[in-house]
Order: sequence, then C-alpha cells, then structure tokens
Amino acid sequence: MSHAGRPSFNETNSAEMVAQRLLKAKAGPLPRFLATVVDHLHQIVRETRPTAADWRQAIAFLTEIGHASDDKRQEWVLLSDLLGVSALVEDINFRRPNGATPNTGRGPFYRADAPRLPLGADISLDGVGTPLTVSGRVIDLDGMPISGATVETWQANAQGFYENQQPDLQPEFNLRGVFTTDKDGRFHYRTVKPAGYGVPNDGPVGQMLGRLNYPLDRPAHLHFLIRADNFETLTTQVFDRGDPRLDEDALFGVKPELVGDFKRLSGGAGWSLDFSFVMAMARKGSRAA
Amino acid sequence: MSHAGRPSFNETNSAEMVAQRLLKAKAGPLPRFLATVVDHLHQIVRETRPTAADWRQAIAFLTEIGHASDDKRQEWVLLSDLLGVSALVEDINFRRPNGATPNTGRGPFYRADAPRLPLGADISLDGVGTPLTVSGRVIDLDGMPISGATVETWQANAQGFYENQQPDLQPEFNLRGVFTTDKDGRFHYRTVKPAGYGVPNDGPVGQMLGRLNYPLDRPAHLHFLIRADNFETLTTQVFDRGDPRLDEDALFGVKPELVGDFKRLSGGAGWSLDFSFVMAMARKGSRAA
Ligand SMILES: [Fe+2]
Ligand SMILES: [Fe+2]
Repeated sequence: MSHAGRPSFNETNSAEMVAQRLLKAKAGPLPRFLATVVDHLHQIVRETRPTAADWRQAIAFLTEIGHASDDKRQEWVLLSDLLGVSALVEDINFRRPNGATPNTGRGPFYRADAPRLPLGADISLDGVGTPLTVSGRVIDLDGMPISGATVETWQANAQGFYENQQPDLQPEFNLRGVFTTDKDGRFHYRTVKPAGYGVPNDGPVGQMLGRLNYPLDRPAHLHFLIRADNFETLTTQVFDRGDPRLDEDALFGVKPELVGDFKRLSGGAGWSLDFSFVMAMARKGSRAA
Repeated sequence: MSHAGRPSFNETNSAEMVAQRLLKAKAGPLPRFLATVVDHLHQIVRETRPTAADWRQAIAFLTEIGHASDDKRQEWVLLSDLLGVSALVEDINFRRPNGATPNTGRGPFYRADAPRLPLGADISLDGVGTPLTVSGRVIDLDGMPISGATVETWQANAQGFYENQQPDLQPEFNLRGVFTTDKDGRFHYRTVKPAGYGVPNDGPVGQMLGRLNYPLDRPAHLHFLIRADNFETLTTQVFDRGDPRLDEDALFGVKPELVGDFKRLSGGAGWSLDFSFVMAMARKGSRAA
C-alpha cells in the first residue's frame, strides 16, 4: 500500500508532483525546461481559475493555431511575436554592450540571396514610390570606421509589401541589396520610402487579438543585416520617427537607438536618411544573430 | 516625439509592456487571462533562457501537436492531461467538501447513451475476463442513503480497451450501464475485472514524454457518474489498490478516497468490490460536473 500517506494531487502541490515525474524520469535540459513550463502553466490555472468550459475553449484555440499553420503561414510564430515572446528571446540572446546598435528580429521576409551592388545603386527596380537616399557609417564602439563591412538591406515598398509577398507585382529582388562599406566605413544607396504594414490578421491569432483592438501594425522601417570580420553580426531595423505607430510596433522591435530621422529634401526631391551602425566586437563562443 | 523617454522593451519590462497593450485595448476576462499567460510565458523565457534555435524547436513542437490533432486524436488534451493541468482545472472547479467522494476527470471514453439496467445485471456482454461483482451505496455526508440515485458506470475490458475503442471487437455498450439505487441507497451489478491501459503514445506528445520515461499508464479503474436530485453530480473513478501503477496514474486521478479493495472470492469465483459514494448537497449556482 505504498499509496497510503502520500499527499494526493491538489492545487498546492500539483506542479511539484508533475515536476517530480519529469525529473525522476530523466535528467537533462528538456525535463528541466518542461518542469518550468509546468510550474507556470499551473500558476496560470491557479491565478485565472478557468472553468472546465474555459479550458476546453483554450484547448480549441491552441488546436486552431496549429491547424492554421503550414509552410506559408506560421500562426505560432505570429503569436510568439505579438505577445512579445520572440522579442524577449531575441533580447536575452543578442543583447549588445552599451553604445552598440541593438539587435532586433530578422522577420519573415529576409532572403539570403540578394544581389551585391555598388555603392550608390538604386534598389528600387520598379521606381514606384517617393525617392529616398540612405547613407550611413559602420563603426566600432570607439567610433572607428569599419571598412569592408557587408551591409545587407531589405524593405517593404511604398504600399507596405515585400517583393516575396508579391512575386507577380514586384520585380524579383526589388528593394533588396548588399553593399560593402568604403575605407571610411561609409555606404549609400537609393531606394523608395517604405510604408508600414499590418501583420496577418486573417488567421486565428490575428482574429482574436484584432477583436481586442490589440496593435497589429508595424511602423515603417528598413531592415539591415551587417557583417564584419571580428564583430558580432548585427541584425536590426531602422524605424521612421515620423510614423505615428512608432510606440505601438506590433513586434516590439522599436528601441530609441533604432529610430532614424527621415529628412525631406528641398524641391520635392524626396527624402534622405543618414544612420550609423555601431558594431560590438565578437566574443569568443558568441552566437551569430 | 512621443517615443522619447519611454523605456524600451527589455527583459525586465517585457511582460508589462505586453500587458499594457492588452489591458489598454479592451477590458474583460480574455485580455486579463492573456495578460496572465503572457506574464508566465515571459517568466518561462527568463528562467530557462532558450536560444533562438531552442525557441524555434519549441514552436515546431507546438505546431506538430496541432497538426497531429483531429476529430479522433486530441494531442492538446493529452498534453494538458499528462502535465496535470486537466486534473488541476478539475480540482479547482469541482472540489467537494471534506468527507464527500472526490470528483475526478470523466475521460474521453464516456458515452451518454448507455442502457438502463436492473440491479444485478451483467454489463459484460461478451463474458471475456475474470468475473467481478460490484456493490455499493450512495449516501449523503451524514451517512443517510440516497435512494433513486442514477449510477452510470463504464470501464475498460480485461485487455484495457473500451468498447468504443474497439467497435469491431466488442459488442456495442459492452461494460457500460446505468443503475438506480434502491430504498437503502444500494446498487450492485456484475462485470469483469478491468485492466489498466496506456494513453496514446504514438503522437508527438506521447513520443516526447515516452522518450523521457515519463509515466504514460493508468492503473485499472472503473468510471462512475452519479446523479441524484439536490446533490452535486459526481464524476469519479474507483481504482484497484492491487495495481502496481497506483502511484503513477498518467492522469493524476488517483486519490486515497478513490482506491477500492478488489477482493478475491473463494473457489475461483472471481472478485468482488464494495464501494460507497458520498454525495455533497448541491449549492446554489454550483456547476454540474
Ligand atoms: Fe519588416
Ligand atoms: Fe478510463
């Protein structure tokens, strides 16, 4: 009768009983991770006290998220993004030293095969939109230029769409390019001013959060992926200070250091942006972004 | 420049920033529930510090759970069951006063349409297994008999399968029946001794937890659903004290008050079980089990 005298499962000991099973069964990172997840799942139940019907509804929602996810649409990633979990994972893994440009998520629209272009090239292949000239420097924490750094950029068009979202409407590689900094660490190119955009709102995640008037839009931004020998690879975004949604980026990517001043050029010649990226030295065994 | 001076998203304030968006957007139970979920999700990330690759793997697993779930198989319910969350939701919603028989999960094999039978009937329609006579009483907290109570029972067969798992191998309604207590609150019926069984282990949840040697078996048990006017409906299970897996019920359903003594009858005539159910008075506005 080994059962007699053992405390039975209840609100107070439930998470501990599950954790014992996990940790008794096998040591290792997965059981420890699961034990932490269980601890918080049980806390959620204790704090929110769902009815059995509430819980069935939660299960139905989780099931729906999976059913709505496939090669083209990943509602779990979207949920993780919109609830700030992706940004938090980014933050704990890719935090940069003070003074260095912060890392922020790469997002789903990156392509690894964008063309290498000479400085000054125009990445707007269809010319649709208001002209924007981007210039900048890549420097180290002491302000010294980093020459030969690879500056990869990609962005949405003036309607808020990336070329790989609109393969029939935009030329391939529209608004993408890879540049190399000159001896002073400088780069520049021509493009069009990007528009902000909404995240997908027609799946279960967007539908649920949309009904709650939760922010689902991103302010206008340019993506950058910057690589230089002996420096931490920097994946980041530069946001348009003039965008009214700057405080409500759906993906929590906006940081004060990543807000750029898009300046209107005189004579209706479009806009300019000048932005410097500060790279941190690579640490031994550090993770690439 | 409303952005200036606002603290930017970081490990310390991340959950609060998400909660502000949820609660600013709309008041109500769903935003509050989500804010609690977010708080604990962010705690999980802070405590376990997953790499970006770990997090992608977690997302892939969540996606797989959904893809493996359909009308026949519900891997989310299974995960909730195996991690004790279902038992906890049960516990907080259907806790009974001291002295009353505890409620425990109904499980997936219940059918609402089992036949009403006279006391003494044999619910084993195929006669396969070792005979078991079940007798018992339904009483209130003062020990007074409850006559006219409806005692619905269902169980696995001697191989650990319910009839609705084996529609081609077992007669319909095998090992199911609905009895009514007599004027002394008593009932009795004949059946066969049930075997324990494993939960599904061929989906992503069972595969993952099975690799960790996590308990996936249930000890032998009988299910009961007991209804009586003016009493809380009681959904419960009676476990076989002789089952070696009593301490490791995969679904955390075993409580000391729910363990019954299956007694061997002399002369190889099978087994007997006598078990009393103690019903709690219905409270105003209380939830049915
Ligand atoms: Fe973007
Ligand atoms: Fe069962």
